[in-house]
This record gives sequence, structure tokens and C-alpha cells, in this order.
Amino acid sequence: MRPSGRTPQQVRPVTLTRHYTCHAEGSVLVEFGNTKVLCNASVVEGVPRFLKGKGQGWVTAEYGMLPRSTHSRMNREAASGKQGGRTLEIQRLIGRSLRAAVDLKALGEYTITVDCDVIQADGGTRTAAITGACVALADALGWMRQQGMLKPKQEPLKGMVAALSVGIVANMPVCDLEYEEDSVAETDMNVVMMEGGKLIEVQGTAEGEPFSRDELNQLLDMAEQGLETLFALQRQALAV
Amino acid sequence: MRPSGRTPQQVRPVTLTRHYTCHAEGSVLVEFGNTKVLCNASVVEGVPRFLKGKGQGWVTAEYGMLPRSTHSRMNREAASGKQGGRTLEIQRLIGRSLRAAVDLKALGEYTITVDCDVIQADGGTRTAAITGACVALADALGWMRQQGMLKPKQEPLKGMVAALSVGIVANMPVCDLEYEEDSVAETDMNVVMMEGGKLIEVQGTAEGEPFSRDELNQLLDMAEQGLETLFALQRQALAV
Amino acid sequence: MRPSGRTPQQVRPVTLTRHYTCHAEGSVLVEFGNTKVLCNASVVEGVPRFLKGKGQGWVTAEYGMLPRSTHSRMNREAASGKQGGRTLEIQRLIGRSLRAAVDLKALGEYTITVDCDVIQADGGTRTAAITGACVALADALGWMRQQGMLKPKQEPLKGMVAALSVGIVANMPVCDLEYEEDSVAETDMNVVMMEGGKLIEVQGTAEGEPFSRDELNQLLDMAEQGLETLFALQRQALAV
Amino acid sequence: MRPSGRTPQQVRPVTLTRHYTCHAEGSVLVEFGNTKVLCNASVVEGVPRFLKGKGQGWVTAEYGMLPRSTHSRMNREAASGKQGGRTLEIQRLIGRSLRAAVDLKALGEYTITVDCDVIQADGGTRTAAITGACVALADALGWMRQQGMLKPKQEPLKGMVAALSVGIVANMPVCDLEYEEDSVAETDMNVVMMEGGKLIEVQGTAEGEPFSRDELNQLLDMAEQGLETLFALQRQALAV
Amino acid sequence: MRPSGRTPQQVRPVTLTRHYTCHAEGSVLVEFGNTKVLCNASVVEGVPRFLKGKGQGWVTAEYGMLPRSTHSRMNREAASGKQGGRTLEIQRLIGRSLRAAVDLKALGEYTITVDCDVIQADGGTRTAAITGACVALADALGWMRQQGMLKPKQEPLKGMVAALSVGIVANMPVCDLEYEEDSVAETDMNVVMMEGGKLIEVQGTAEGEPFSRDELNQLLDMAEQGLETLFALQRQALAV
Amino acid sequence: MRPSGRTPQQVRPVTLTRHYTCHAEGSVLVEFGNTKVLCNASVVEGVPRFLKGKGQGWVTAEYGMLPRSTHSRMNREAASGKQGGRTLEIQRLIGRSLRAAVDLKALGEYTITVDCDVIQADGGTRTAAITGACVALADALGWMRQQGMLKPKQEPLKGMVAALSVGIVANMPVCDLEYEEDSVAETDMNVVMMEGGKLIEVQGTAEGEPFSRDELNQLLDMAEQGLETLFALQRQALAV
Repeated sequence: MRPSGRTPQQVRPVTLTRHYTCHAEGSVLVEFGNTKVLCNASVVEGVPRFLKGKGQGWVTAEYGMLPRSTHSRMNREAASGKQGGRTLEIQRLIGRSLRAAVDLKALGEYTITVDCDVIQADGGTRTAAITGACVALADALGWMRQQGMLKPKQEPLKGMVAALSVGIVANMPVCDLEYEEDSVAETDMNVVMMEGGKLIEVQGTAEGEPFSRDELNQLLDMAEQGLETLFALQRQALAV
Repeated sequence: MRPSGRTPQQVRPVTLTRHYTCHAEGSVLVEFGNTKVLCNASVVEGVPRFLKGKGQGWVTAEYGMLPRSTHSRMNREAASGKQGGRTLEIQRLIGRSLRAAVDLKALGEYTITVDCDVIQADGGTRTAAITGACVALADALGWMRQQGMLKPKQEPLKGMVAALSVGIVANMPVCDLEYEEDSVAETDMNVVMMEGGKLIEVQGTAEGEPFSRDELNQLLDMAEQGLETLFALQRQALAV
Repeated sequence: MRPSGRTPQQVRPVTLTRHYTCHAEGSVLVEFGNTKVLCNASVVEGVPRFLKGKGQGWVTAEYGMLPRSTHSRMNREAASGKQGGRTLEIQRLIGRSLRAAVDLKALGEYTITVDCDVIQADGGTRTAAITGACVALADALGWMRQQGMLKPKQEPLKGMVAALSVGIVANMPVCDLEYEEDSVAETDMNVVMMEGGKLIEVQGTAEGEPFSRDELNQLLDMAEQGLETLFALQRQALAV
Repeated sequence: MRPSGRTPQQVRPVTLTRHYTCHAEGSVLVEFGNTKVLCNASVVEGVPRFLKGKGQGWVTAEYGMLPRSTHSRMNREAASGKQGGRTLEIQRLIGRSLRAAVDLKALGEYTITVDCDVIQADGGTRTAAITGACVALADALGWMRQQGMLKPKQEPLKGMVAALSVGIVANMPVCDLEYEEDSVAETDMNVVMMEGGKLIEVQGTAEGEPFSRDELNQLLDMAEQGLETLFALQRQALAV
Repeated sequence: MRPSGRTPQQVRPVTLTRHYTCHAEGSVLVEFGNTKVLCNASVVEGVPRFLKGKGQGWVTAEYGMLPRSTHSRMNREAASGKQGGRTLEIQRLIGRSLRAAVDLKALGEYTITVDCDVIQADGGTRTAAITGACVALADALGWMRQQGMLKPKQEPLKGMVAALSVGIVANMPVCDLEYEEDSVAETDMNVVMMEGGKLIEVQGTAEGEPFSRDELNQLLDMAEQGLETLFALQRQALAV
Repeated sequence: MRPSGRTPQQVRPVTLTRHYTCHAEGSVLVEFGNTKVLCNASVVEGVPRFLKGKGQGWVTAEYGMLPRSTHSRMNREAASGKQGGRTLEIQRLIGRSLRAAVDLKALGEYTITVDCDVIQADGGTRTAAITGACVALADALGWMRQQGMLKPKQEPLKGMVAALSVGIVANMPVCDLEYEEDSVAETDMNVVMMEGGKLIEVQGTAEGEPFSRDELNQLLDMAEQGLETLFALQRQALAV
């Protein structure tokens, strides 16, 4: 039995609240159960130096946790003077995932930065962040369209991207782990997928015992199923 | 006429939402109009080194702004590797203000850290932070009482603390400036007050022209009046 | 009785020694009793990026304490790798205060940086720094005039700026606190004033008990009186 | 055709040179073709603070690239003042991979740090590092056994760990990519495996087009085959 | 002809003003012509970790330049977040030089830190610093003697240490170079000597053309002569 | 008797292996006995800002030690966030020494950076680094000649530079100290010389007792003799 009473393949209640803050070109509060991440997409003209003059845009992400988003308070990274390894790893993952969804040529010479800040953490912050950030990105692109910043017949967004964690807990594959499960999982996997079923990123880690190809396949099957739910929710949120 | 249609002495709509996140011992979302600050109070056993063995506790604060809480995106302080001067100045002010409200001897050897993170900024983030942080602090002390961490007959909280900005805009003293007013104010003053009317901190700055003693007095009169409203709202929030 | 035998409203002996070092365009050693601060003003062509092309100049300040300017040795900020919150707060205050005295349009596209380094500390380093820095700034502007860097009929300096600390010690308002008084003051206030009596900055802090409007007014009255002495000394120093 | 003339499933020539430097308790130069990584394992008594008193040991890793290990010179991380995101990500991966191979209880209260420094880079530095680091770790444990630091009947090393990169280049799955292939790969996957065939870590990333489950399976099949070669070479190196 | 009209072997006017500031246990302003360095020696109980329990003391130094001690303003090291290579090199040299003069066993478990801060620079700041720091150190040891911190029959100070720069300017060996000479010197050498004529440190650098053994010997002869003057001035200062 | 059985004036076996890595324009592994340093010279177009438009090039160096190049593991400087004082001092010395060997006008507007990374340390890493770096520099210049980057009749390399440590161990002057000797030396001197016998840098330090002019001369005589051997080996390596 899972702590929440969910079935193994059941995703937590997911909500995507658009226009959550008023300044960002795209602003989405994503909730996966008790995990809450605020995803703000900001558009600026110009690209980083390494892309100057290449006639393309750039999409990047930054990630942070409020110090008391977690069970016990963590140090504030701004005060300790650097972002930790986990933070950098996650924001690089979010950035790569979003770029997989965007035709950077069609974007033109603009940079979109999506800030994903964890307001409350209960497992799966990086998968929630990717799922919410893609909706914020879609809103930012919509805003650019309205402003006439995009070329008439070009659509930079190739499709939605979502992410889900799966893992083996007490020998059972489960989907969308909350903290209580995550902290005892034997294997933990994050799957980032493109609408349509193709994979963008698969990161599976044995926390305790190594895992077999069979277990890997069970986890991927389970992730695929849960991700369908997330794509539907993203589309529904954007349809409003 | 003020941009919001408010009268000069009118404070913006203020809300104080307690138990906003689930992990912190005190968690309050404070809103002064469009300014939204999340105040999370965390209790840990023990005190900083300079207070060891003195039989007293400590209260401190940290402050941060989400990168896109502002009109245009700011750099993330964790990424640039240090907290800026404005950030440090504000978190020192919040800490001093809260300590003025607490009997540190009665607190015992515990440290309460209040994290004030700006979700959305529209002027007055430091005064909103102080006003919300005091309610979060009260909740954290209530939690400590429940846990039996406080001595039976001792009450660490001496009274509520609130803060309000006042300023001179277009030659007119106004109360609780929003960003549009703040950015053109000739004089800007933050007043931190203890319930009952005594002053904890007065910080008045001429942004353009210097100000007279008369103007200073007008601003303080206006602040006193507005702060009464804030104390009432704090008490009301805690009464629920 | 005050430790120095001074009356409550008495300022310590103040000296302003111009041309203290030989390289800076303005160089003043200011002494408020045992507090000694070296204020060096440096002129460079050009302005910070955010002011480029706006046809105006900039005035800024930096502050530091020699490690053994204090009773017991402090860590060297250059070695610990960052300026502390107090340092940043003070240098921001000095910069704002000096800018209030200068017509930045009349200055033209030059930047004047005033370094205020504390040689010996005995309370009131920030007020001494502002008072001395303004004289160093006047000398730097005089040097610019000689070099033909200023337009013929324009005077960037609007008047002198000086600062004084006042506070309540053992229930008595006193002026220009030395360290022994400062460390036990119930309320501590720094007042920055423009020649002529208008206020640039008022920062009052309750260190122990909150203070009343009456006490605030007593302190401001006392500050005004002491500041007259400082303006006279600045004028006298510059007249030589 | 691959640039090196290899077949798709062919691993580059791999050498593992033990006792490469004289001070480290385990020192292995691992070469995957032109990729050369020096893996030095250091043993110290004691464990990090978070493990104190838990009766177990710790294994961790650090990773770095010499500035001119690459085609064009990179900045020295020590000079720029921080380790980049890619560096932190890789050293976290190496550490997790090695810990999966070790029974930390059987290790006792010792910490083994494996430094993996890239002398020359031509793709696959992280997989070479893991493969070499495991041999250096085995040597360090052998040294501990000789010194009497390990309990008689306990063997901390559960088995060998090796890693291999696989990817899709020009629509063809290939094994052990060199830089020229890596830089144009559509999908890039790193597979860390335990001797016996169980998986420790799978990290697949779509660099260009997303990939299908079928492609994922082809890549994993190819990795399994190549990893057998690596395990044989590790055993052979340790048998000398 | 030298810019100052000095003969080649002539040292600039040197003054050593003791008790220059009031808090430090030893405080000396040293002037070599226009070069002015404030040397403050601070005594604290205890030793750095690597010396704990070895029954000896420690002497160390820190060095800094006020931003406008130089012809044009330098960046403040505290603001740029690190001490530069030249600063670290000089403070290591000062520390080594002072330790050569002290019997650390006789000092007992105390640490003396000598802060050398350059108030005004005109060449030779490191040699002036060493020469002044040794007098400050002597005063600090005298203070310790008065406080009863030193064992009755033990004298930690083995003798005075002084330093002098020599160099080849326009093919002529000269002594105690001022900035105008230093900046065009072909060879620059700093000589640190113990009273009695033995050498503690010799650092000779060819800035332009390499130098011969003959030139090296001429420079050392000249340094020896000049250092006699400095030892006499140190003794004279301490005799007062 | 020396630990290695060498005579006092005997240099350790020295090898210079060119083309050690494949990417750098010059790449030399230099070995002085067990001390092994990899010297990679990188050529890039352009010069640092302070040399822009002066029609000359620049040569600089960086130095680092692998964490376990030493007897016990040192902290990784990239992880601790800064290069230590010793590191900065050594890389400044290497840079100055190499620049003494190069006609920067003849080099043209290119920058050559020589990275000296210590693979294994046993005393004398800085002298080995200079000796190897000069050969790597010669190779980089040869590569530039081949690429047509140098003007036809101009030779930037004025001659070879080499360096050797000498010291007094147990009252006996010895040459090319290994770690066991270095750690107990009374006096330690590094001598950098230009082919032909002129001196570039002399750095002598009394670690314990001060040294006399006679001892200094003995050490310099011994260094000169040993350096002849190094110049011969450099020429021989480049002749292949």
C-alpha cells in the first residue's frame, strides 16, 4: 500500500495554474500533490555570446528551492555563495528538456529563461518543474506572437514536454513518488518525454541494489502511461 | 491622484494567509496589493556560537527575491555567487525588527529563522515582509508552546511588530507606496513600529530633494495611522 | 556623566586634515575624537554602464575598516572573500548622502569614487566618513575645475553634507556617541543633513527598548545643533 | 563508417595501468583510445560529519579536466573560482557509481576519495573515469587489507563497476563514442553496470531528435556487450 | 641623477612612529619617503589548528593597499572578492621574514598577526612593511611581557629584521627605489636581513634584461650598507 | 649522504618528453626524478586587454597540483573556490621566467598560455615546471612558424630558460632537492637562468637559520653548474 493510498500507476493530483504572477511573460504554478513549483518564463531580446550571429534563439532554465520548502530548513544558496551540484544538475536537465521542445531557428534571436522555484517540496520537484515550465514556455511564446516578435508562419514549439518520476519501492514499481517513497526507493528514474511518446531524457539510478533490464522496462512502461495523463493536463490548461 | 485611486493615507488591501506551506513551523503569505511575500519561520534547537551558554535564544531573518518577481528579470543571487547590498540591508532590518518583539531570554536556547521570499514585487517588499514575518513568528512560537519547548509561564512575544512605507510623491505625503510611486518618490521612509505606538526603526531617505522636519513629521503621522490598520489585521489573522 | 566628561549635546573634537595623501584628487583625514577615517576621492572619466549616454556623472563610495582599527582584531574582508552586510550598508549610505549634495548633470560624464577607510574606530565611523568625504569631494571638484573638466558656469556641489550620530544612553539623549556609549545605547540614530538644515537621511534604531515620537524629536533637535558645528568646521577647513 | 574504422559495437583499445603514480593508495591511468584519465584513490581515517558514529565508511569522487586536455583550451576551474555544472554532475555520477560497488558497513569508518583527472579528452571521459576508478578503488582496498584496516572476513567490494557510452550517430547505434562522434550524436547514453549485468545508472539524452523505446533498447543491448569487454579487462588488470 | 637627487646608495628619509593607533598591541607607521605603511600587531591566545598542542606560538602577517594609495585607483580587494597574487605573495614574504626573527617556542601558545596596510605607495611597500612590522612586533612582545604572558627568562625576539629594495636603473645599481625608478628598473631585488648581517630572503628578478653574478653582488653589497641604516633607526625608535 | 645516494652537486635524472598529449601546440612531460609535471602550451590569437593595440604578444602560465600528486591528499583548489597563495606565487614566477625568454614584439599579437600541472610531486615542482615549460613554449613557437603566424625573419625565442633548486641541508649545500631534503632544508633557493649564464630570478629563503653571503655564493655556484646540465638536456630534446 502506498502512503497516499494511490495505486502503483497512479499520478498525484496535478494542477497547472497559469498567469500565477503578473510580471513574467509566462507564469505557471505547477502542483504534483504537495509539491509546488513556480515556473516563470522571461523573454529578452538577444542571445548568449556563443550564439551571436547564428540567427537562432536560446532557451535556458534556472532552478532553486526556497530554504524552507523542505522538511527541515536548508541553507540558502545565495547566502552560501554558490549553487550546489544537485541544483546545477537539475537546472541543466530542465534546460535541455525545454530546448528539445523548441525549434531555436524559428524562435529568432531571443532568449527565454524559465525560473523554476520550489515553494513546497514533497518529491518529484524536477519532474513537476519540467511539466510546468513547458506550459510557461508556451505562454511566453504566445505573448511573443501577440507582440509580433515571431515570424508569421513559424511555430517554435514542436510539442509539449512533460516529465515523471518512477521507481521501485519495496520491490514494487510505482509512479510519481512522493518524498516518503523517494527516500526509501531502491531505484529512482526520471523520464522526460515529448508528446507523441518519444523520449528526451531517461535517468535511472540504483539507490540501493542495482536493477535489471526487466525492471527498467517495467518502469518505462509505467512512466509512459503516467505521462499521457500529464500531456492531457497540459493541453487542457492551455486550452482555457 | 494616486495610480491605484487610493487616498494618500490609504493602505493597499492587505491579506495574511497563515499555514501557507506545510513544512515550516510558521508560514504566512503576506500580500500588500500586488506585493506578495512568503514568510516561513523555522525553529531549530541551539544558538549561534556567539550566544552559546548565555541562556538565551536568537531570532534572525533572510530575504530574497525570486528572479522574476520584478518587472524585468533580475539575476539569481545564488548564481551570481553573493547576496547584494540591498538584500543584506533588508534582511538585517527584518532581523532587528523581529528581535525587538521577542524576549530572547524567555525563548530559551532556540533559534528561529524567518525566510522572507518575494514571490511578486510591487513596492514595499521589506515592510510587507516584516508585517508577515511577525505573524509567522507568532505561529512558530505557538508551535513551540504546543511541543512543550517553552517554559510554562514565559511568553517570548512582547507584542506585534509591523512596518509601513511612507513617502513624498509629487509634493504629497502618501502611505504604502506601490512601485510606480516608489520609483518617482522624492522622499522614501520605512517605519517599523511596535504595537502600542513605540518606534523600532525609522529610515528616511531623500531620493531627490532633501526633506524638512515638518515633512518628516507629516510622514510619521501618516505611518502611525496606517500601522494601526496593520496591527488590527495581524491580530485578526492570529485570532482565527 | 559621559565617559569623556562631555555635556550631552557636545560633539567630540573634530579635525579635518586636507591633502592627507598625495595621489588622490581629494584626500581628507577626518577625526571625531579617537575615530579616524581617511577619505580619498578619485576622479575618472566615464560613467557606469547604466548611465552611459545620459549626459550626467556619478558619485559613489566604498567603505572599509583596517582589521585592527577596532578593540579586538576583525577578519580582513579581502581575505574572507566578501564585504559584510554592515560594510555594504554603510558604503551605500555614504554614496547616497554624497549624491544628494551633487548636481550630477553639472558634473558631466565623470565618476568620483570616495574611499572611506577607517584607521581607528571609536564609534561614529559612518558619520565621520560622510563628513570627511564631503570635504574630499569638494577638493576633487576643485581639482576638476583647475583641470578644465567642468563647464565654466556650472557648480556641481549644491552645498555641504555632514552626518552625526545621536542616541539615548541611560535614558539620556546624547550626541556623537563614542564606542563605550554606542555599545550600551538604547536607541541609536544617524542623521545626515544638508547645509541649511534639510534632511538627507534619518536612520533611527531601537537597540533595546522601542522609542517614542518625543524621544525621536529630542534626538533630531540635538542632531541639528551638533551638525551646525560640523558645517562650520567643513567650511573653515575648505577656506584655508 | 566510423572515423576510427571501428565496427558499431567495437570499443576503443582500453588500457588500465595500475600504480601509475607513487603516492596514492590506488593509482590507475585508464585509456579509452585517446581519452586518458588518471584515477587516484586516497584513503583517510574517519567519515564526513553526516555519517559520524554510524559505523560505516564513505566513498566519494572528484573530477577535473586539465585546461588543455581538450581541443581548445578551457578555463582552469581553480582560477575561475568554481567547478562548473558539468564537472559537478560527473563527479556526483562517479561517486554514486562507486558506492554501488561497495558495502560501506564492511569498509568501516574510512573515507576513500577517488580523484579522476582528465589528462587528454576524446569523448567518454566519464565512462573511462568510472571504469578506471573502480580498479583504483580495488587497489586501495587491497592496500587497506595489507595494513590490517579491514576486518578479517569482510570484503567491502561487492564486484566491479564499469561504464560505457553508447549513442545514435547518423541513425546508427554505436558504442564508446569518440569526440568526433559525440559532437554530432542525436542521442547519447551513459550506462553504468555492475559485474553480472545489473544496472547502476542509465542516463540517456536526446541531443537532437527524441528517441524511441526501440532505440533505447538497441543502445542498452550494445552497451551490455561492450561492458563485458570492460569487466574482462578490469579483472585481467587486477590479476597481474 | 636619481629623481630625488639621492646618491645611488642613499636610502630615503625613514621614520618609524610607534603607538600610531590606540588599540593594537604594537602599532607603527613606517615611512620610506612617500611610502607610508601602517603596521598593527595583534596578540591573541591560541595557535592555528596545525600547531595545536606543539607548545609553540605563531607569527603571521596580512598585507593590503588602500584603493587610492596608488597613482591611479586600484579595485578594492574586499569588493572584488579575493586577494590578488601580488598581495598573497607579499604577505607570505612578510610572515616568513618575521618568523625568522622569533623563537616560536619561547613565544608560547600565542598568535601575533601583523597587519601591514599601505596608506600611500611610492615604491618599496613590502620592504617598508617588513621594517615597520618588526618594530610593531617588538612592541607587541613588550606588551606581552608587561601582561605576564611570557615566561620570565625567555626572549622570543632573536633580533631585528629589516628589508630593502635594490635595483639596476639605467645600468646603475641603486638603493631603495621609489616608484618612478621601480617602474623602469631592469633588475629589482628585495633583500631581507637579520641584524648582524645574515640573510633571511633574497628575491632578485630581471624585469628586462637578465643580470650577471657581478651585478647581483653589487646589489647585495649596496643592500647590506643600506640595511645597516635601517637597523640603527629601528633600535633608535625602540630606545625611546 | 643524500637519501638518493646522489653527490651534493648531482641533479636527479631528468627527462623531457615532447608531444606528450595530442591537442596542445606544445606538450612536454618533464621529470626531475619522481617529480613529474605536464606542461601544455596553448596558442590563441589576441592579447589581454592591457596590451591591445601595442603590437606585441603575451606569454603567461598557470600552475596546479593534482590533489593526490602529494604524499597526503590536498584539497582540490577548484572545489575550495580559489587558488592558494603558493599556487599564485609559482604561476607568477613561471610566467615571468618565460617572458624573459621571449621577444614579445617578435611574437606578434598572440597569447601563449603554458599550463603546468603536477602529476606527481617530490620536491622542485616549480623548477621542473619552468624547465619543461620552456621546451613546450619552443614547440608552440615552432608550430606557429609552420602555420605562418610568425613574421619570416623574426625569432621570438631569445634562448632557453631553465630553473633549479639548491639548498643547505644538514649544513651541506646540495642541488635539486627532493621532498625529503626540501622539508628539512635550512635554506632553500630557486635559481632561474637564461642560457649563457645570466640570471632571471634568484629566490633564496632561510627556512630555519639565516644564511651568509658565503653560503649564498656556494649555492649560486652549484646552481650554475646544474643548470648547464638542464640546458644541454633541453637542447637535446629539441634536436630530435
